[in-house]
Amino acid sequence: MEDKLKELKARLLEVHDLKAAAQLLTWDQNTYMPPGGAAARARQTALLQRLAHEKATDPAIGQLLDDLRPYEESLPYDSDDASLIRLARRDYEQAIKVPPEFVARFYAHQARTYQVWTQARPADDFEMVRPYLEQTLDLSRQLADFFPGYEHIADPLIALTDYGMTVADIRAVFSALREELVPLVREITARPPLDDSCLYRYFPAQPQLDFGLEVVQRFGYDLNRGRQDRSPHPFTTEFSVNDVRITVRVNEHDLGDALFSAFHESGHAMYEQGVAQEYEGTPLAGGASVGVHESQSRLWENLVGRSLPFWRYFYPRLQAAFPDALGSVPLDTFYQAINKVRPSLIRTDADEVTYNLHVMIRFDLELQMLEGTLAVRDLPDAWRARYESDLGIAPQDDRDGVLQDVHWYGEMIGGMFQGYTLGNIMGAQFFEAALQAHPEITAEMEKEGDFRTLLSWLRENIHRHGRKFTAQELVERVTGEPLSVAPYMRYLRRKYGELYGL
Amino acid sequence: MEDKLKELKARLLEVHDLKAAAQLLTWDQNTYMPPGGAAARARQTALLQRLAHEKATDPAIGQLLDDLRPYEESLPYDSDDASLIRLARRDYEQAIKVPPEFVARFYAHQARTYQVWTQARPADDFEMVRPYLEQTLDLSRQLADFFPGYEHIADPLIALTDYGMTVADIRAVFSALREELVPLVREITARPPLDDSCLYRYFPAQPQLDFGLEVVQRFGYDLNRGRQDRSPHPFTTEFSVNDVRITVRVNEHDLGDALFSAFHESGHAMYEQGVAQEYEGTPLAGGASVGVHESQSRLWENLVGRSLPFWRYFYPRLQAAFPDALGSVPLDTFYQAINKVRPSLIRTDADEVTYNLHVMIRFDLELQMLEGTLAVRDLPDAWRARYESDLGIAPQDDRDGVLQDVHWYGEMIGGMFQGYTLGNIMGAQFFEAALQAHPEITAEMEKEGDFRTLLSWLRENIHRHGRKFTAQELVERVTGEPLSVAPYMRYLRRKYGELYGL
Repeated sequence: MEDKLKELKARLLEVHDLKAAAQLLTWDQNTYMPPGGAAARARQTALLQRLAHEKATDPAIGQLLDDLRPYEESLPYDSDDASLIRLARRDYEQAIKVPPEFVARFYAHQARTYQVWTQARPADDFEMVRPYLEQTLDLSRQLADFFPGYEHIADPLIALTDYGMTVADIRAVFSALREELVPLVREITARPPLDDSCLYRYFPAQPQLDFGLEVVQRFGYDLNRGRQDRSPHPFTTEFSVNDVRITVRVNEHDLGDALFSAFHESGHAMYEQGVAQEYEGTPLAGGASVGVHESQSRLWENLVGRSLPFWRYFYPRLQAAFPDALGSVPLDTFYQAINKVRPSLIRTDADEVTYNLHVMIRFDLELQMLEGTLAVRDLPDAWRARYESDLGIAPQDDRDGVLQDVHWYGEMIGGMFQGYTLGNIMGAQFFEAALQAHPEITAEMEKEGDFRTLLSWLRENIHRHGRKFTAQELVERVTGEPLSVAPYMRYLRRKYGELYGL
Repeated sequence: MEDKLKELKARLLEVHDLKAAAQLLTWDQNTYMPPGGAAARARQTALLQRLAHEKATDPAIGQLLDDLRPYEESLPYDSDDASLIRLARRDYEQAIKVPPEFVARFYAHQARTYQVWTQARPADDFEMVRPYLEQTLDLSRQLADFFPGYEHIADPLIALTDYGMTVADIRAVFSALREELVPLVREITARPPLDDSCLYRYFPAQPQLDFGLEVVQRFGYDLNRGRQDRSPHPFTTEFSVNDVRITVRVNEHDLGDALFSAFHESGHAMYEQGVAQEYEGTPLAGGASVGVHESQSRLWENLVGRSLPFWRYFYPRLQAAFPDALGSVPLDTFYQAINKVRPSLIRTDADEVTYNLHVMIRFDLELQMLEGTLAVRDLPDAWRARYESDLGIAPQDDRDGVLQDVHWYGEMIGGMFQGYTLGNIMGAQFFEAALQAHPEITAEMEKEGDFRTLLSWLRENIHRHGRKFTAQELVERVTGEPLSVAPYMRYLRRKYGELYGL
């Protein structure tokens, strides 16, 4: 058995390493690659992905998994070996269901669609990309159909990003959240708006990058095993537990852009850096799901990075970095600015409270398209109608509407958005548990700019486990409760109640 | 035949692309990778190299090459198709001799050794890296032994870098050069030394990088298909004809470091960028040999970049970039400073005249280690003794001695150094031919800072051919003469005769 497990690990390490190499090619494409390199890069990335897929679906892996089943069943569910075999089986069974020709066709279609979208968005021309999106919908439905026996056609797609969750589960959570969120948004928007003008002064790029990097190092992001670069869209990428990198986008006239993307991406990166070293290159490395990943990024971005205790310590440092822009702005004004709630059109720029309404709109529209109750050609109208009804505003054009997000145009329709809101919910649930276990976390951050207690708790309870547990298993283990919107709503009501005097 | 050629190209494209991906991993390791990434990187690079090797040695390629032989023989030697098949056969026959396990082991060893060297050099601790170097020697000898029938054990290793040359050939060329060079060095060092103190003032890093980049763009280095980054040791790397990058090292107290490494690396990069587009991803892309590659880099670094006509145009611009350091330094003083001849310890910092003595020392030490007449543990002493006897100086420490160059610590022992001096010789031979064909080249550079005639000549005569011809074939085609040290010695005597009043 030991030999078989060793062979399984060796084979899976190759799959991991080919994917890691492909990710480095993508990281480079987004950070440093000269424009001339694009054609060769597309070819080279596709080659590595194809080789990884070939190796991941080698029948020898299936045989090893069969041979290892008795060993797996003899072990506790949460033992490393049993979990490694279980995860390897899940990955293998997902991978072999999809024919390689389909994978290649879908990737090629995604690459073409992405290219068209990069032109269609600035041109505000949904018609240009519509036929591609129709094919994306068709391919997404075909992909789901490789996993027969689903209750909802989006279920198999959600299993690829938030394994263990179904449409029915998510609808239940979202509807509970919506019920409490919509009245809160209404209460807030009835109050006089906060002033966030101090964020749109002139902030030179380099001090922005330096300040963000200083803070995320204080959080615990390890630069010996990571780094920060610039890219058009912020992202985190992992080549090894010991090489996890973040990127940020800098806008010299919007302080929030680089700052909060550094906080956000460092949350993803600390999660990946915190996985147990012995999981390196195995199916146990990585994050439990998109939702759990997002719980970590949103926790550092919002629950820490937009909190008053955090800024009590760091605001004087920020003022020192930008004396012209912020020298005479009081802490309270700054704190209100970064927490201003206002229904807006762009999800990634949205405040903490209205953010989830954006996600729910996307989620519902995805389901309707997959169910066949919404045609792609009717998507822009459906989008506007939902923004009008849910947020009280509607985009003037498709650029800031249905064309705003890359997801449908670079990946698929289905499973693309629910993780963001699941992340907000789980992040609050985790943070509440951390504060219950260690009430000193707040004072440490406020008085010392010290996050070690918080990070250690996250490491111990979440990060080190990697992919071992599903999102729900993790939530139950860590908090003793099932997934619940209550901590998140408690957090929002307390924070925004104070900010808006509700 | 067309189908077979197409299949051959498709298979070789995969080999190229796997190697290109491996090179990106190496480029990243040398520029941006955090230190923690080293272990995974070594593993991932080794995997890609192994897969490339597996694909390169697939018997199907051997079969295609056999099938294509009649077609190849029906074509002129210098036709693209015949040359592609010829080069593919050479590569295949070299590759199948080396077992894949060995390739993987050697690459992994190189990556580990490189990491140790990056610590050993600043710590001046040869002992730290000695066991690794001993293994490198052992592996280098094993590699040579996969090619039995050699006259000298270094011959198969030289065939990997300067195909078509043997130890005997190189010894003949080096001995002819040495015979003329040693008296010239003696004559020069008997004269009063030139003053190069102006190069060691304070030169802030960013303007150094900017100025170097401006010049190499004027040379013709295309930033749409390239870029400049910083690394501990300057190098050029190619992922595609359309993505060829250079790196430089900056020293704020030594102007020459970044400046001449930018010129040098741009010569390599323009060669790779100048290969015919239709050779992309085929065995015809790349340089004819290390020597020919070095002929291009040394041509731009020295024959152009340390010449008086060049600086007549660019020196005022350099003064404007560094007004404090150079504002009051006359052109003649600067020109003398960058051409000061002085026996020194570091090859890459050496002047044009003594440079080749460094190369010959390394070449001889390589041969002795491979022959078994010099043990690795005795290398530092042997190094010091040879520097004392050949250059009249010896390093105080190993940092500036045997640890100075990455080659033995990042690649192998054997075939690593001869190309530098072959390059000097060929560069002068090519440049003389270019000036004979286009005497206006000098005036264009001096009056307009315009290098288009020179670059076009190099593109047409050398670059576009890629690997089609061997070094000797190229020299004969381009200059009408065999490889000869005469143009190089004519150049050195004229230039240094004037500088030193010989």
